[in-house]
Amino acid sequence: MELDKYRLYSEMARGLIKAEFVFKNANVFMAHTGEFVYGDVAVADGMILGVGSYGGEKTIDLEGRYLCPGFIDSHLHLESTLVTPGELIRQAAQCGTTTFIVDPHESANVSGTDGIDYILEQTENMPANVFVMMPSCVPATSVDDNGCTLSAGKMKTYLDHPRILGLGEVMDAVSVISGNASMHEKLGLFKNKVKDGHAPFLSKGDLAAYAMAGITTDHECVDYDYAMEERRNGMYVLIREGSAARNLEAIVRGIAEHHADTSGFCFCTDDKHIEEIRKDGHINYNVKKAVELGLPAEKVLKMATIQAAQCYGLKNLGAIAPGYQADFVVLDNLKDLNVMEVYHRGIRIKKDEQAEIRPCAPHLRNTVHLLKFREENLRLPACHGKAHVLQMEEGQITTKSIQEEVPCMEKNGELFFAPNGMYDKIAVIERHKYTGKTGIGIVKDFGLTGGAIASSVSHDSHNLIVIGDNDRDMALAVRELIRTQGGYTLVENGKVFDTLPLPIMGLMSDAGYENVNAKLARMIPRAHSMGIPEGFDPFITLSFMALPVIPEIRITPRGIYLVQEDRMLEHPFADLRIRS
Amino acid sequence: MELDKYRLYSEMARGLIKAEFVFKNANVFMAHTGEFVYGDVAVADGMILGVGSYGGEKTIDLEGRYLCPGFIDSHLHLESTLVTPGELIRQAAQCGTTTFIVDPHESANVSGTDGIDYILEQTENMPANVFVMMPSCVPATSVDDNGCTLSAGKMKTYLDHPRILGLGEVMDAVSVISGNASMHEKLGLFKNKVKDGHAPFLSKGDLAAYAMAGITTDHECVDYDYAMEERRNGMYVLIREGSAARNLEAIVRGIAEHHADTSGFCFCTDDKHIEEIRKDGHINYNVKKAVELGLPAEKVLKMATIQAAQCYGLKNLGAIAPGYQADFVVLDNLKDLNVMEVYHRGIRIKKDEQAEIRPCAPHLRNTVHLLKFREENLRLPACHGKAHVLQMEEGQITTKSIQEEVPCMEKNGELFFAPNGMYDKIAVIERHKYTGKTGIGIVKDFGLTGGAIASSVSHDSHNLIVIGDNDRDMALAVRELIRTQGGYTLVENGKVFDTLPLPIMGLMSDAGYENVNAKLARMIPRAHSMGIPEGFDPFITLSFMALPVIPEIRITPRGIYLVQEDRMLEHPFADLRIRS
Repeated sequence: MELDKYRLYSEMARGLIKAEFVFKNANVFMAHTGEFVYGDVAVADGMILGVGSYGGEKTIDLEGRYLCPGFIDSHLHLESTLVTPGELIRQAAQCGTTTFIVDPHESANVSGTDGIDYILEQTENMPANVFVMMPSCVPATSVDDNGCTLSAGKMKTYLDHPRILGLGEVMDAVSVISGNASMHEKLGLFKNKVKDGHAPFLSKGDLAAYAMAGITTDHECVDYDYAMEERRNGMYVLIREGSAARNLEAIVRGIAEHHADTSGFCFCTDDKHIEEIRKDGHINYNVKKAVELGLPAEKVLKMATIQAAQCYGLKNLGAIAPGYQADFVVLDNLKDLNVMEVYHRGIRIKKDEQAEIRPCAPHLRNTVHLLKFREENLRLPACHGKAHVLQMEEGQITTKSIQEEVPCMEKNGELFFAPNGMYDKIAVIERHKYTGKTGIGIVKDFGLTGGAIASSVSHDSHNLIVIGDNDRDMALAVRELIRTQGGYTLVENGKVFDTLPLPIMGLMSDAGYENVNAKLARMIPRAHSMGIPEGFDPFITLSFMALPVIPEIRITPRGIYLVQEDRMLEHPFADLRIRS
Repeated sequence: MELDKYRLYSEMARGLIKAEFVFKNANVFMAHTGEFVYGDVAVADGMILGVGSYGGEKTIDLEGRYLCPGFIDSHLHLESTLVTPGELIRQAAQCGTTTFIVDPHESANVSGTDGIDYILEQTENMPANVFVMMPSCVPATSVDDNGCTLSAGKMKTYLDHPRILGLGEVMDAVSVISGNASMHEKLGLFKNKVKDGHAPFLSKGDLAAYAMAGITTDHECVDYDYAMEERRNGMYVLIREGSAARNLEAIVRGIAEHHADTSGFCFCTDDKHIEEIRKDGHINYNVKKAVELGLPAEKVLKMATIQAAQCYGLKNLGAIAPGYQADFVVLDNLKDLNVMEVYHRGIRIKKDEQAEIRPCAPHLRNTVHLLKFREENLRLPACHGKAHVLQMEEGQITTKSIQEEVPCMEKNGELFFAPNGMYDKIAVIERHKYTGKTGIGIVKDFGLTGGAIASSVSHDSHNLIVIGDNDRDMALAVRELIRTQGGYTLVENGKVFDTLPLPIMGLMSDAGYENVNAKLARMIPRAHSMGIPEGFDPFITLSFMALPVIPEIRITPRGIYLVQEDRMLEHPFADLRIRS
């Protein structure tokens, strides 16, 4: 703060002159002491001057409502909601989340540091504070083909960026624990900064070794006992409640039952879709739910504010105290915890304001790098006996690895796989470096008949992924995504039923969330009507079939990957044919 | 940590190989969760690997005793105990304090950055962690003559020192709040670091302005209400229990009665003498007392460990968790809380080990810069009517400013002040820059007869200070301190009764604490027998008479200082003579 400004604000804080802006008659949540104090909050230039009895040039009478620090989402990915970062942030900010710690892992897998720069640019000067964690595992594994390898060397230039707080979720626990040199080079680079973890179900000893490497947080924790084990190891637990993963009830119920120490717990969404944010809320939803589950509001509000700020070293956020940023949530009462108003740097965030969609550099709109694609590329070799099959599991993104006879038809004296509604063909096509490498497999119980479904969102490498019951429709779907440079598409009987273009890195739309939702509302029911069971979200399920870290069998541009065996097969009949 | 070391320690943490050193069967205090967990603690190379079930190359069976992280003294001055830093630290470490946050404010006032370097050197490679805060107010005020002005410019080179954590106690609240440029230059220099406060009794608005300037802690707080007010302003409260100031009971009783949030409270001693440390303990005494006052041991232990570490950003201290330094206190049980053993970096601290006294650079042993001193220098002008008098208050370091007739005798036709046991003469002589500037005053109720008492420890500038009932003995006392280059001395009827030499900057002895204590045990009773009331510690009371920030009247080398009026008088009759 410049000295002349300090002098002025000091006079306001001391009540010698009127403060710029005063929130009168509030029940102010004091995050440092976990109590409510009735009084006025003086603000100038977006900064809190003091809590007490103040007169202001401008005043707002809160009439006894509850004034809290703005909420903090301690871990989320902006890309997963399919719209531009600004749209998600504006929607979530209206719910009271004024600080976001984002991991631009998806963008980095497609466009490397350009993808990270995109997220940084898009989130600059927003009506919220957006901080970025440097993605640590790009690519996620060595068995996949993504757009970029983010080495420690490439990360160096970001070390001093004021909005880069540390290293993003370190998913590759094995590399950490085993002392992999390239992983530890990254950890070393962020030695004095926060290093986010991703540590579901590590054994006691592994968790100790993981924490010893300096990993500071975890958001993958799903139960109370493991949460406490992580806390004992010095890690913050970011309790996640998003669209897919919902871990809050299990953890918070445990905390409440055991009257456990709540310091070191925070909240996050990880992935939460805009329609759900609009319906249920964002971190305010986590707060509400945690209070309903029996935790005192004072403890819950500390989790949503100061504790997250301390976790990430954000010294002027998360509290209503002198020198802190004037980010506020006004709540109606402590039972309903409804968000009435939200302020960022002392300025009220308007409800339902049209999000400005910022432009995107042309090269980030041209990331589906496939010169031509022909139906022939999807052919499987002749079939002899059993095949390795991805057995889908309803409601899950895991698969079972099974070997069984698949339906075949004869052609030129040989047998070939013939999809039949129970068995479909699945393919992943490398789309970053013009290699066109294509892995083809067989999927069971996805149920699609009479067409194909394809996406350029396929974790974590985001190659093109397609499932269909005939090569012609599958090829059409792939060509459609080349045309739109990414998106979701559904092809039915030789025609594109509809496409949601996701031209920004093949991950995001710039058409606005209303248009995105309208498209999804049209395409998803149609995909179900083509046979995909209701237990699957067609595109989200599809997007995980290429992620080679989830059991038991996956499809990559290099072929079929048996996760537990760490073994790549060229095609579904590869090793079985030899045995037969 | 080097990668090959990490790999080895990771295998130990995971139990794949035996750990270097294991503490078996301990009730381990988990600072992050505030609970005790029964198990083993694995250690290698002074670092904690994990808590669980471990086998070790070397083991110690704790048989169910309580293993806690080493305690942290969050604020202390090493000089005030009169011995070398190493002696104090060794004694306190035996009581379980393994981390010290020290402010070398006294050394800096005498020898500037050389004094700070001395403290840094003397505390290097100790059996404890010693961190240093850069003294912020040297000199403490502009009305005094000290050895050095510590400007922001001189502090710059220390910014990257790994053991300098931030800016030391910012006593000059007025300069902070009013936006004094030189003070704010220092605050700005330590922008991203801890800035210790010193904020007794600020008004609500002043405290807000003080906190807004980024001040992070206060150790001057004496009651619960003010402590909570500081916490609400985002400041850590370092609860002080030392030799002189004892604030623990008032604050902790309040916390216990109100069931207040204890996060953000820590413990400190500020000033605690070695004989008291040996008798009562150090931070373990604070812990014991806080538990006796009704706080749960788990909360108290967090205050003594992890919370102080978090306050000062000490990421690998204050907890028993993987990657943390192996600093331990073994307690017998949670009721008596007796310290049985102490470990620093996994090595046991031996009881009553002879402290190594490290050498000191010659120029720091030559800091009483007075070429010659004559009795004539102590003469007061002729006396006409009333005088300004320092009225002592028993048991206090404050004085009352009174104007009254003082005893006089005639000489050459004029009246001169004549000490009589109730009224003594007091003088402060500048000793840093050979100016010999001498301020002379009259003190009431100090009671000294038949001699003089003098010291080179006189806060904060540490000039020579002397009180006596005759000029001859006072001059002898001053000459004795020039001879010993600092110390405490007592002169009786024309002879030096005894002297405790304090040759290190005139502040510390290198004769060992036993010798220091022996000298004090001889000199202090003699001083009382010469008339100084039992309610005063003769030398400590003397040392505060020159501190121009304590009400109401002080003596400086420039004359008599009326604190509230901020007015300097050349001699005790200065303005009164004109009026009379």
